[in-house]
Amino acid sequence: MLDALKKEVYEANMLLPEYHLITFTWGNVSGIDREKGLVVIKPSGVEYEHLKPSDMVVVDLEGRVVEGDLNPSSDTATHVELYKAFPNIQGIVHTHSPWAVSFAQAGRSIPAAGTTQSDYFYGDIPVTRAMKESEIVTEYEKQTGTVIIETFDEKGLSPEEIPGVLVNDHGPFTWGTSAKNAVHNAVVLEQVAEMTYHSLQLNPFDIRMDQVLLDKHFKRKHGKDAYYGQTKK
Amino acid sequence: MLDALKKEVYEANMLLPEYHLITFTWGNVSGIDREKGLVVIKPSGVEYEHLKPSDMVVVDLEGRVVEGDLNPSSDTATHVELYKAFPNIQGIVHTHSPWAVSFAQAGRSIPAAGTTQSDYFYGDIPVTRAMKESEIVTEYEKQTGTVIIETFDEKGLSPEEIPGVLVNDHGPFTWGTSAKNAVHNAVVLEQVAEMTYHSLQLNPFDIRMDQVLLDKHFKRKHGKDAYYGQTKK
Amino acid sequence: MLDALKKEVYEANMLLPEYHLITFTWGNVSGIDREKGLVVIKPSGVEYEHLKPSDMVVVDLEGRVVEGDLNPSSDTATHVELYKAFPNIQGIVHTHSPWAVSFAQAGRSIPAAGTTQSDYFYGDIPVTRAMKESEIVTEYEKQTGTVIIETFDEKGLSPEEIPGVLVNDHGPFTWGTSAKNAVHNAVVLEQVAEMTYHSLQLNPFDIRMDQVLLDKHFKRKHGKDAYYGQTKK
Amino acid sequence: MLDALKKEVYEANMLLPEYHLITFTWGNVSGIDREKGLVVIKPSGVEYEHLKPSDMVVVDLEGRVVEGDLNPSSDTATHVELYKAFPNIQGIVHTHSPWAVSFAQAGRSIPAAGTTQSDYFYGDIPVTRAMKESEIVTEYEKQTGTVIIETFDEKGLSPEEIPGVLVNDHGPFTWGTSAKNAVHNAVVLEQVAEMTYHSLQLNPFDIRMDQVLLDKHFKRKHGKDAYYGQTKK
Repeated sequence: MLDALKKEVYEANMLLPEYHLITFTWGNVSGIDREKGLVVIKPSGVEYEHLKPSDMVVVDLEGRVVEGDLNPSSDTATHVELYKAFPNIQGIVHTHSPWAVSFAQAGRSIPAAGTTQSDYFYGDIPVTRAMKESEIVTEYEKQTGTVIIETFDEKGLSPEEIPGVLVNDHGPFTWGTSAKNAVHNAVVLEQVAEMTYHSLQLNPFDIRMDQVLLDKHFKRKHGKDAYYGQTKK
Repeated sequence: MLDALKKEVYEANMLLPEYHLITFTWGNVSGIDREKGLVVIKPSGVEYEHLKPSDMVVVDLEGRVVEGDLNPSSDTATHVELYKAFPNIQGIVHTHSPWAVSFAQAGRSIPAAGTTQSDYFYGDIPVTRAMKESEIVTEYEKQTGTVIIETFDEKGLSPEEIPGVLVNDHGPFTWGTSAKNAVHNAVVLEQVAEMTYHSLQLNPFDIRMDQVLLDKHFKRKHGKDAYYGQTKK
Repeated sequence: MLDALKKEVYEANMLLPEYHLITFTWGNVSGIDREKGLVVIKPSGVEYEHLKPSDMVVVDLEGRVVEGDLNPSSDTATHVELYKAFPNIQGIVHTHSPWAVSFAQAGRSIPAAGTTQSDYFYGDIPVTRAMKESEIVTEYEKQTGTVIIETFDEKGLSPEEIPGVLVNDHGPFTWGTSAKNAVHNAVVLEQVAEMTYHSLQLNPFDIRMDQVLLDKHFKRKHGKDAYYGQTKK
Repeated sequence: MLDALKKEVYEANMLLPEYHLITFTWGNVSGIDREKGLVVIKPSGVEYEHLKPSDMVVVDLEGRVVEGDLNPSSDTATHVELYKAFPNIQGIVHTHSPWAVSFAQAGRSIPAAGTTQSDYFYGDIPVTRAMKESEIVTEYEKQTGTVIIETFDEKGLSPEEIPGVLVNDHGPFTWGTSAKNAVHNAVVLEQVAEMTYHSLQLNPFDIRMDQVLLDKHFKRKHGKDAYYGQTKK
């Protein structure tokens, strides 16, 4: 079942080493079939060179395995929570990409400092608060999703406009309109983390871009007035 | 029409991924036929692996498409402004190369700190002022060109001697005697941004090179007394 | 003799250039046959491209060559000391990988700042004290082992829980359940050194993760309650 | 004439791009035939991909071209000065490798901070003073050699023990027992520049290694008591 989605999720997972976003097995990509309410995700701890489309695991929105011989990613419960809370996202990526992790370990968000970020993210890329003991000891992976959702709720952020987050002392999650689009956003997040890290060393006090420039670049590429790229016919 | 220029501009665009100056489609190169007053430029948002010479778009000096089935780069109006204001340049490059963007986001110019820079740039590589709201909301891409030109005017800089600039909170534009020479200068700018970033961390207060050394290196490679390389016969 | 172990140690050595952990010949991997009390180690100063399994040298636990035409690694005495003091380790790696060396030269441990580290190291990765003159001038390589062992003793650390160390002003040693597992830990150490270096620049004062998160991630992958990866059948 | 030396110098030049020490044509390697008093050096400004052994230029110790159709490297006079002042060196390399240039632009030497450096350099890698106007405007390349020699004289350094230097606001020169050995030292210098840059950010005030450890590592690999590597038979 879901062979096309398995193939897409497999291919999206294979983009992680291609874009240098992962070391060893430190990452996973999933995609969702919204009609069936089923999520396809990478198995846990399998090396990328041995991965094949049929290894992808199918889980339902309770995180129960519906199909597949392997254990799903240990982060499955986080993915499931996000799919339930953010109804418009179709794919999710988690990695330990080094620049994003550097900000996550420092407990700092990535400020919107230039047009590279605002072409994809409509503002800062937030960092979650540290998780509480009770959240860590019980249902940790599910609570990781909960703290992400809380971050977006409390800051009034839209997951369509800010397609990614840093989990405190852990690393980035990104999402998008498909599994591959979520990988695309993971690449952008890693790239802006690298550039803004250096900008912060050059200018620690005044790094945020003007709101009007932020608006311009985001809306040039997103929404009804977008004019970047080729018109879809 | 302009098949030779299209081929050169295509090849110059393909150098951007080869020199690691771009991620995804974040860059564009153009070239100009000064006699005909026509600019050849990369189409907007097309992936480099799918690009071919015939995809290049021809526009006039009003930015109107004269030939080509695809939309030209969204930055076309910036290129056109620069070609009109700087009559001796023949090619232009825009990228989001990470070290150059790090300075642009910090709103800092790249000081002339060593001979690598002064072999190609006769002084600091300037950063523009932040753009005003009125410039961003109306004809943004054209105004991006205007603010670059203003920067060169106000500082009394020559675009032949300083073949590049950082647009504030955005990224680098470089130019040169051909599309490929403009890419060459984009590589130099990225390289000196990387090196001078580190020099600034090692020595924040006294980084600029002596004027006499700056003169020596620039003039060793440029102008009537140049003696670097092989004599053109 | 020990042909299987020689092959494994050879292959583990060849992973060092593959993972970009070494320049030239600046690294070595060994493995031990605990029953026979014999250590297999890379020869000294042989270029990786010329290395073959039969070049591996066999030494006993006094560091005496038992088999092999080449001199063993100049660091052999360090490996032997560690095998004697840490009875559960089966492989050892030494490199001059750049991020790890950056911390070693600064005389700083790598604080446990995020889950990437705590998936493999149950706490900070310690740095040894500087070696004393007497330790350097006599039996230097053996004393390098002694100062590592002292570090673990004095801090009450377990070599199974913290499978690596930084030797002051020198570089990293890691170990593990096999020669290849020791290389795996060398990759992790280098990666967390890189990330935590940047986190420290972003947040110099409050970088350590909560103990409960540290516990959670280490125990998710190690010990009787581990649930990461696929069940071994 | 000197075909074997031309081949060796050619091959040593080709190592520069292989070890990522250069961008474009920003580097050159030479070798000397001490008996004949002739230096073989890369031609000026020729791209590496087009270089061949027969392009190498032969000059005498006055810097006059003895054989070859191309102009020698513009840095030839610097090489010649060093060969005359340092009678035991057989090969010289100049690059603009980025980490070394970062220190040169900052006007800072690379302190001996760890064993990687002291395996090859018996102390700090010095930076020259800034060159005077008179030195820059007349015989600049020759005077670049003079200021290097002055640095070694004034500090009482041995070019055999410290096989490299940073020219202020310019970049590194290294040398060695052959053209290829000089490239080897250029790689070491770049690597220790990178590592010690980061160590200085982690610990700005106390970075130098103990003299006794410096002695130990240098002498383990150099001089009559060396015991690293395989005995030459």
